[in-house]
Formats: sequence, C-alpha cells, structure tokens
Amino acid sequence: MKKLDLLTLGDELLLGLRENGHLHYLGAEFARHGLPLRRNLVVRDEPAEIEAAFRDAWAGADVIITTGGLGPTSDDNTREAVARVLGLPLEFDPSAEAAIIERFARLNRRVTPRDQKQCYRPRGADLLPNRHGTAPGLYLEKDGKILVMLPGPANELRPMFESEVLPRLRLAGILAAEESYLQLRTCGLGESLVEERIRPVVEQHPGLGLAFCAHQGMVDVRIASGGQDFSTDELKVIARQMRDVLGEDFVCCGRHSLAKVVLDELRARESTLAVAESCTGGLLSNAFTDIPGASKVFAGGVVCYTNDAKVQMIDVPEDILMQHGAVSAEAAVAMVTGVAECLGADYALSVTGFAGPGGGDESTPVGTIFLGYASPVGVWSRKVVYSGDRLAVKARAVTTALDWMRRKLLKYKVEDLLAATGTEA
Amino acid sequence: MKKLDLLTLGDELLLGLRENGHLHYLGAEFARHGLPLRRNLVVRDEPAEIEAAFRDAWAGADVIITTGGLGPTSDDNTREAVARVLGLPLEFDPSAEAAIIERFARLNRRVTPRDQKQCYRPRGADLLPNRHGTAPGLYLEKDGKILVMLPGPANELRPMFESEVLPRLRLAGILAAEESYLQLRTCGLGESLVEERIRPVVEQHPGLGLAFCAHQGMVDVRIASGGQDFSTDELKVIARQMRDVLGEDFVCCGRHSLAKVVLDELRARESTLAVAESCTGGLLSNAFTDIPGASKVFAGGVVCYTNDAKVQMIDVPEDILMQHGAVSAEAAVAMVTGVAECLGADYALSVTGFAGPGGGDESTPVGTIFLGYASPVGVWSRKVVYSGDRLAVKARAVTTALDWMRRKLLKYKVEDLLAATGTEA
Repeated sequence: MKKLDLLTLGDELLLGLRENGHLHYLGAEFARHGLPLRRNLVVRDEPAEIEAAFRDAWAGADVIITTGGLGPTSDDNTREAVARVLGLPLEFDPSAEAAIIERFARLNRRVTPRDQKQCYRPRGADLLPNRHGTAPGLYLEKDGKILVMLPGPANELRPMFESEVLPRLRLAGILAAEESYLQLRTCGLGESLVEERIRPVVEQHPGLGLAFCAHQGMVDVRIASGGQDFSTDELKVIARQMRDVLGEDFVCCGRHSLAKVVLDELRARESTLAVAESCTGGLLSNAFTDIPGASKVFAGGVVCYTNDAKVQMIDVPEDILMQHGAVSAEAAVAMVTGVAECLGADYALSVTGFAGPGGGDESTPVGTIFLGYASPVGVWSRKVVYSGDRLAVKARAVTTALDWMRRKLLKYKVEDLLAATGTEA
Repeated sequence: MKKLDLLTLGDELLLGLRENGHLHYLGAEFARHGLPLRRNLVVRDEPAEIEAAFRDAWAGADVIITTGGLGPTSDDNTREAVARVLGLPLEFDPSAEAAIIERFARLNRRVTPRDQKQCYRPRGADLLPNRHGTAPGLYLEKDGKILVMLPGPANELRPMFESEVLPRLRLAGILAAEESYLQLRTCGLGESLVEERIRPVVEQHPGLGLAFCAHQGMVDVRIASGGQDFSTDELKVIARQMRDVLGEDFVCCGRHSLAKVVLDELRARESTLAVAESCTGGLLSNAFTDIPGASKVFAGGVVCYTNDAKVQMIDVPEDILMQHGAVSAEAAVAMVTGVAECLGADYALSVTGFAGPGGGDESTPVGTIFLGYASPVGVWSRKVVYSGDRLAVKARAVTTALDWMRRKLLKYKVEDLLAATGTEA
C-alpha cells in the first residue's frame, strides 16, 4: 500500500486556536477510499520548518498532501518552500491571474500586488481551480511520487479535494474502487455496552477489523476487512447481523445525522414538522435545516427565549408558566402543541430548560431539560438532566430530542404494521 | 526559545474518526505559558512508526511531549519504543503496581496480567500519578532535554498535565510568566487587505511576530514578541495602533464571536433583539443563544421556512410574498419589522434566501440572500450573493448579518456621540 503523509501548515493549530479539521476531514476521506494516512505533521508557517518537514515527507512517503500557506500574505510560504526542496523553478501562470481578476471583479474587490504571489506554480505542476477562493491548489507527479497542495480554508479545500483531487488520485490508481469499511451508527448506548451487544456477532467472524468512536451521545462502529479477509458483501452481511442485535439503538449505516434520519422518515410519511425551543436557542431547528430539501418537511420553528415570546408566538397559556414555570413538563407540552397548531404541522418537538451557567433553582438545577413531542398519535413529555457547560448541554439536549423522536417514529411504525396485519403489539 | 514537539499517537486520528483534541488543548496551554509548540507529529500505533517519529523529535527538539500508547492493550507501544530509542532499560516500579491494585479494588475490577505492562518505566524517569485511570505518565530529563509521556484519554491527560507537568516545567524554568501574544479579530476584509492596512504599523516595529488566520469571513491578526523583543505592554500599544488603522473593520481583541460583540453592545444599551430567519434555519438565533446570559437581550427568534409561517407567525403581508417573492428585499424588511413588533424588541435582524442546492431562479439564483435590520433609528435591507454548499452559504449569511449589525451599531453610536457634542457626522 502507498505511504500517504499529510503536512498541515498553521500556527493557529499549534497555538491551540483551532481544531485540526483538515486531519479529521482528509483522514476520513482517505480511509473511506482505502488509503489510510500514515502520518500527519503539523508545522509552523515558517520557511525553514516547512522545508524540513516537507523534505522528510518527500523522502519517506509516496503521496504527500500539504494544506495551507498558499495565500497572498507574508506568512504564506508553502509554495516557495516546496519548490526549493524539489529544486523546481516557480513559473507565473497567466490563467491563475485571470481567475483571480475575474473573481475579484465579481466580488467588487480590488486586486493587490500581493495577490500575484498566488499565480506561481512549480514547473510541471498542474493548477487546481479554486471555486471558493483565490489561491489555486497544485498537483504534481514527480519521481514516482504524487504531491497535492491544497489551500488552508476548509470551504476552499473540501470542494477542491472532491472535485479535483479524488478524480486524479483515482486515475493514478492509488485509491480502492469502493469503500473499504462499513459504519453503523448507534445512539443511546455507551461504547462498552455497544461492544458487549455486538460481541456475539464479532466472535463469529475472527479477524474482523473493529473500531469504535463515541461522539455527542452516539457511538459509531466501524467494521473493516482487517487482513483483507472479508469482501464488501461479507461486511454487509455482518453489518446486517449487528443491526439486528442492536435493535432500535441502531440509527443508520454510514454518517447520516439523527436529524436526517428523522426528516427522511417524515418525508416518507408526507408529514410536516414544527419546532419550539427555548434553551437550545435555534440549534434544533438548525439541525433540521442543515439537511438539503428540509423545506419539504420542516414548516418552521420558534426560539421562544422569554415567557412573553412563548405566550405571544405559540399561545402558551400564561397560567401554565405562572403555575409550573417555563422549565416544566407542562410548559414543554404547551409549547409543542402550540407550535404544531400555529404552523399546522403534523409532528412537533419542543425543548425548554436551563443550559447554564445562570438560571435554575433547587428543584430544577442547571442542566435540567424538558422535551415535548406531538404526533398524530398523541403528545408526550420527558425530563433529562445533563452536566457540562452551556454548549455541551445544548448539544446533548438536541441529540436526545432527535433520538427520542426517531424511536417514537420507529415504534409507531412497527405498531401500525402489526395492527394492519391483525397482530397485537 | 526552547523547541517543543508534540508526538500524538492514534490510528483513530489518522482515520478521521476523532478530532486531535490533544493538539488543541496542549497547543493552547503551552502558548498561554509562553512556549508555543514547534511541531505536532501524529503517527500510527505501530512500534516502527513511533520509533522513527520519536527519534526525529528527540534529535531536533528540546522538550518532547508524547500522548497515548501507555495503556495495557496490545496496541499500546509508546513506552517500549521510546525506551529503545533512548537505549534505556525498562524497570518494574512496585509503586505503580500498588496504585493500580488500589484503584481496581476501589472500582471492584480485577487486575489482569496485561495491566502489569503499565508498571514499567525507562530507567531514570519519574512516574506521574494518574488520578483518573491506570496508566501513569512519565517524566524524564536526559542530555539537556525533557521528555513528558502522557496517557491518551483526555480526562486522564488534562488533570495530569495541570497538576504534574506544568509545575515541573515551571521549575525547569522553560515557561514564561504571562501570555506572549495578542490577537486582533477583523471582519469584512480579505487577508491581503488586512496585511496591507496594518503594514505602516508593522514597518514601525521590526522583528514583530505576525500571523494571519482567515475563517468564515473573518481574519485574525496575531502579534507576538517574536525574538522576545517586545514586552506585553509594547504589544498592547502596537495592537492599539493596528486597531486605529483598521477602523470599523476591527471587531475585538481576543476571540469573541461577532454575536457576543453585538450582544454586549445591546446589553450596554439595555435593548432587546429579535431574529426572523428563513434559509439560515436557526443558525443565527443559535449564534446569539450560545452566549451565556443571552436571555437578558435576546427576546426570541422565528425560523419561518415556509410562506405560511412568515404570514402566521410574524404577520408578513401575503401581498409582499406574492408580488416580490419570499427571497426579496421587501420580504426581508417585512420579516424584520414583523418580528420586532411581535416580540416587542428594540432591534431585529432577518435573513431570507436560497441556501441551495434546490430553489432559486434566473433572477435570484442559489446563494442569493437578503438581510433586514431594524433599529430605533430605522430599517435597512441588503443583498449578498455567496457561492459554496448549503452549510457554507448558511454560515456566511450569518457572519454577514452579524457584522452588518455590528457596523450599524457602531456607526450610530459614533453619530450619537457627535450629535451630543454638537459636531456634524
């Protein structure tokens, strides 16, 4: 297998100002395409550091990806450092200049002399067009090795990787034809419980590659061919067996979000959805509206942060807020029925709680959340309590609300089915 | 300045299954203590890879931190690989064994022969007690260099770093007494324009450490003492000069979000805010509600995804939607005045547009966004067009809306001030 190194530029990563999202993204992309990363080297935006790291990578690896340092400012040094190590002259490319002029004209921005820097490429390298920024990427095959240089901003790097880099690497024959692992997404169980649950299946298939990843209340299980012993078809059979033992804790195969799983189910029922949220402050609505085509299902949402907003916008009775407080099962129910009615939606979710750090009292401390769910079958509420900071509590509340709705939808589907065949639930 | 390298073990990082949280955490910690990381090397859990990477780090750096690979399982190889490179024998430490036995007794867990592996240390190394797990850390001074080996789980690493590692490094005299860089956040300018704007200031201060980081429409400028030549007070003076030349494109010092800057300004005016958003789908409300104490300012928001929702929830006249369409300046204005009125808010923002991939037409293609802003002084609308996928368009629209509001608030503050002093704006 080819040795693949990722060289990531950026002082801000080494200063802990930002997550190394490129490692996360490119690592997952390459793993999916059967060429896992061997190493990732994060270095500062300094010519000497970049040269040393690149020399090392070029000596040891077959494919080298660099990210960052292609822009117009004085701390963008990757192009120059790499050209020096490879002993290649930098040549001016008029087509790169034309693209920048065209882009800036469209954005009504002025081209500065500095921007010219981005129009140079090491001799023999191809330019990779940048649809979302000024600095083009670079692609070079030399001495039996492949070099790919990508711009730093994620919104430029990712589309360039998908539309320009993957096809070239496929052509070069170094990517697997199909995904070489399968992923099962679960929700509601801890990592060790997931492992215990699927153990009977794992024990039937010695040599199976197995990995777990826990994130935000979900656990992903990845099964891989291990020593190349399992075909994709066999992996699919094994995934099916795991799915069966996981039952309703299984969410989906692959990487769909809970919001997408819920939306797809509602779309299949030709139903609509409304959301009323207080402490999650828009995060729940946003989870749904991140999904392309959400507008077919998602009627709308209300972020009713104050009591007044609850009363005015979705007709929550003032008496309920006075008697039980805004963070109560009663308020969650009034919110969910109110928003469903106002927006004429078939289904609705509500969240009210104290995300912290302020708010809360003895009986309902910070971290207390009430959820409400309305469907054509009925209305439910549920209380959960989370620890952690404000953002963590918001995220956990959204995950729990989505997973709760997913299970309810699943449950009533099964029961409908049983009812239709005349069997008791 | 001492050269500091971080060696991070973990297949799951290279497979993109998990963020490299150790780089984020340790990078920030060391930067805060005046010893920024020089490099981070992420390698697989394989003895040969670990040895090669550690040999390289030990040769080039003065302080080396390793994370991961100290546990009991077969893929934990760091201790052994490091001892081989340093030519040090591994010695059994009964105190480490006693700590594990004590811990397991408390947890009612059985000690297995595998756990013994964690009781060995390279000759001359100190054990760092692990209060939250079994594998102790290791600390070694040798050949004028310092080696720190930390366990992989974040909940074990972080407390160990704070209580055991920082005090030792302070004693060794390699940490600075105070923070050694300042950050200025800007919005609305590209990276090259920011650099051009601050060039006069930079040229007055040769040797100044300077770095740029662009993200989501913002550019951060970081100034550092470089070769220890600038004191923190001098950096503050330079930051003030940059702030002056940046004018209203300067957002804040440090890392506050645009939403926090806007909320703080509204809080100072004792004013309230309402939001009506269509294509951003809750992301704008969420930006505000991520800020602790937002409820003092943020009255509420509406995610009015459909025309019906716009009409029913915030009284957008149907005629406007019929005549101009939901993605229009007229709709943005009707939304922003409607939501301000419904929620009795002093200020309001609205967003309507096509985030894609569906929607749009010839005159208003995907990526077209209309913003609305209402304040006690008046009502404005603004059109912007973005490329990129759905999530990128949503994020850019939110950034633009927040920055627009920030500038409006700033502008009218200055004018109020001028009016109060009897000067013409």
